[in-house]
Amino acid sequence: MIHPSSIVSPKAKIGQRVSIGPFTLVHDDVVIGDDVIIENHCEIGHPTPLADGAPLVIGDGSLIRSFSCFYAGSTIGPGLRTGHRVTVREKLVAGQGLQIGTGTDLQGHANFGDHVRTHSNVFVAHGARVGDCVWLFPGVIVTNDPQPPSERLAGVTIGDYSAIGAGAILFAGISIGRGALVAAGSFVNQDVAADQVVAGSPARVVKRTSEVLVRDGSGRPAYPWMRHFHRGYPPELVAEWRRQFGPFPDDEASS
Amino acid sequence: MIHPSSIVSPKAKIGQRVSIGPFTLVHDDVVIGDDVIIENHCEIGHPTPLADGAPLVIGDGSLIRSFSCFYAGSTIGPGLRTGHRVTVREKLVAGQGLQIGTGTDLQGHANFGDHVRTHSNVFVAHGARVGDCVWLFPGVIVTNDPQPPSERLAGVTIGDYSAIGAGAILFAGISIGRGALVAAGSFVNQDVAADQVVAGSPARVVKRTSEVLVRDGSGRPAYPWMRHFHRGYPPELVAEWRRQFGPFPDDEASS
Amino acid sequence: MIHPSSIVSPKAKIGQRVSIGPFTLVHDDVVIGDDVIIENHCEIGHPTPLADGAPLVIGDGSLIRSFSCFYAGSTIGPGLRTGHRVTVREKLVAGQGLQIGTGTDLQGHANFGDHVRTHSNVFVAHGARVGDCVWLFPGVIVTNDPQPPSERLAGVTIGDYSAIGAGAILFAGISIGRGALVAAGSFVNQDVAADQVVAGSPARVVKRTSEVLVRDGSGRPAYPWMRHFHRGYPPELVAEWRRQFGPFPDDEASS
Repeated sequence: MIHPSSIVSPKAKIGQRVSIGPFTLVHDDVVIGDDVIIENHCEIGHPTPLADGAPLVIGDGSLIRSFSCFYAGSTIGPGLRTGHRVTVREKLVAGQGLQIGTGTDLQGHANFGDHVRTHSNVFVAHGARVGDCVWLFPGVIVTNDPQPPSERLAGVTIGDYSAIGAGAILFAGISIGRGALVAAGSFVNQDVAADQVVAGSPARVVKRTSEVLVRDGSGRPAYPWMRHFHRGYPPELVAEWRRQFGPFPDDEASS
Repeated sequence: MIHPSSIVSPKAKIGQRVSIGPFTLVHDDVVIGDDVIIENHCEIGHPTPLADGAPLVIGDGSLIRSFSCFYAGSTIGPGLRTGHRVTVREKLVAGQGLQIGTGTDLQGHANFGDHVRTHSNVFVAHGARVGDCVWLFPGVIVTNDPQPPSERLAGVTIGDYSAIGAGAILFAGISIGRGALVAAGSFVNQDVAADQVVAGSPARVVKRTSEVLVRDGSGRPAYPWMRHFHRGYPPELVAEWRRQFGPFPDDEASS
Repeated sequence: MIHPSSIVSPKAKIGQRVSIGPFTLVHDDVVIGDDVIIENHCEIGHPTPLADGAPLVIGDGSLIRSFSCFYAGSTIGPGLRTGHRVTVREKLVAGQGLQIGTGTDLQGHANFGDHVRTHSNVFVAHGARVGDCVWLFPGVIVTNDPQPPSERLAGVTIGDYSAIGAGAILFAGISIGRGALVAAGSFVNQDVAADQVVAGSPARVVKRTSEVLVRDGSGRPAYPWMRHFHRGYPPELVAEWRRQFGPFPDDEASS
């Protein structure tokens, strides 16, 4: 399952049933779990002194799609799934179920919770603290320098279950509250409280997430999204959401 | 013309006079027309169950530049030209003369007319319907989920001859009318009527395209652009434009 | 130091102590200086008739990271450092110390001064004139066509020491003055005078850079940034800044 055209360091620690595709390069400081697929044209464990000697750790059951580049010094939990040509630099610590969209650039030196999902072409600067089950939609930019260029880096904090819409820019040092919704195209330069919807450039509060209704005439609220959107999440997590946020509309529909 | 370092599946159907560059990978479910150039470091026909068994079809006379990734299950007409490291996923159906700029990510499940041109770093979500001769300039984001994350996807419709300026974001479900102009940096969350110019965040109508004059003191209108911009279009299409939108300023100048 | 899996044209002119990584392709029209590192999966000297026969010239001591693509016909000074998967097309002339962030696309036909730094996912269209020590932060888009699509290209001019914030869009033909600061998320469609801060969509003047204070209660001005940010610049340049803009706050602190 290791393609003969790939180049895999004998120092790399590779788990059971790992597949490595054509033209992929695996460096020395790499620890790959079991049942991992690494596709073609990837670079895994790019060396850097900034990793302080730590390896790249990829959890079990992960899928890294073609043309992706991961640095040494990051630790990613099980069930990672990437798009194509993603970049993940050193000192990213991420939980299980991370999804990284095509072309996304995670600069590392950051902490991500479980089940974070970024869509395509997202950029996350150093110092971000991203909670569980956060969504970053296409083209989101998360910055860290309030007076660029400077050495005073101020990471962004993004609360659990929040959703950052396409093309939104989060300014250095701000916090996005739990369950908040940042509308597409927003430029956010102030903290956003939990369960608020903000929009605009600069972004302002427009309503509470509980006031956003599904556009199907049902009168049902669209948030918290965990009540109706479950694709790809583990059944035990969805069961927990049912206890915490339920009953779900689908429960009602089928009852 | 097949570089010895490339890996080409014997199941792939390759036309006459096809060139395949170094370090390129061609999968099984691929139908390449005649006179096609596929450069180095590409991945052609990335397998996916979402293709429902359909192959990737690339029309005659196409040019796919380096580091690009095309999935199985899309059908692209003749005369395709890409920049570098583009991604095209499954179930994109596109006409002739498609141009895709460097770094652009077309998510598939979409219909594109003839002569659509995207510039660099464009993102188009599932469900888009893009007319003939549409322009998407650098960094445009076309979304599809009005209440993210949800399962209620609402594709964007973009009319023939319209031009979407750099960095513009088109919100899920909106329609851009034929010949409309979306200014750079706009966030468009409402439908745009034909031949209107919109600008801003959120975008508002600022004038009709017929009121936009070329900035050369000539008093000539800048739109419809088909009257003065013809680079790379087939002569028979330009001749049709002359009948439909002419006479052209260049005709007048040389008469 | 030339990896056996790389493909290097015998016509390419390669300097002393040059390292070329796995799966990298070096074309004919290339002049690489001494002490240059070209990592894996790169394409160097992509041929194009638009180069008018000129080679790609890369100065001494440069580092080109993985998955990058450089065209023939550009001349880059010594000390270049790139991120991953950058694209540099023909007829870019750049001075020493150029830094190009991951995913950035420089379209060429442009002039860059010394020590220009772009962060990730920047796009610069043809015709840009970029001064010395300019910063382009993540996702900046520099356009060149005021009435797209047209043949009337109008490049942007960006003055020495100016900083363009994340996600900002610079409209075709505008000028950014020396030392100006464009806030993140701005859409700039008018000229910006020297030492002004602009913000918003469309961008408006909000203050002078001298009025921006470091957020540490010290009352010190944050600009000109050359008084306190020196990472990676040559000591002789920093010494010149001390003469021109000093004394530096750090000088005072240690005195």
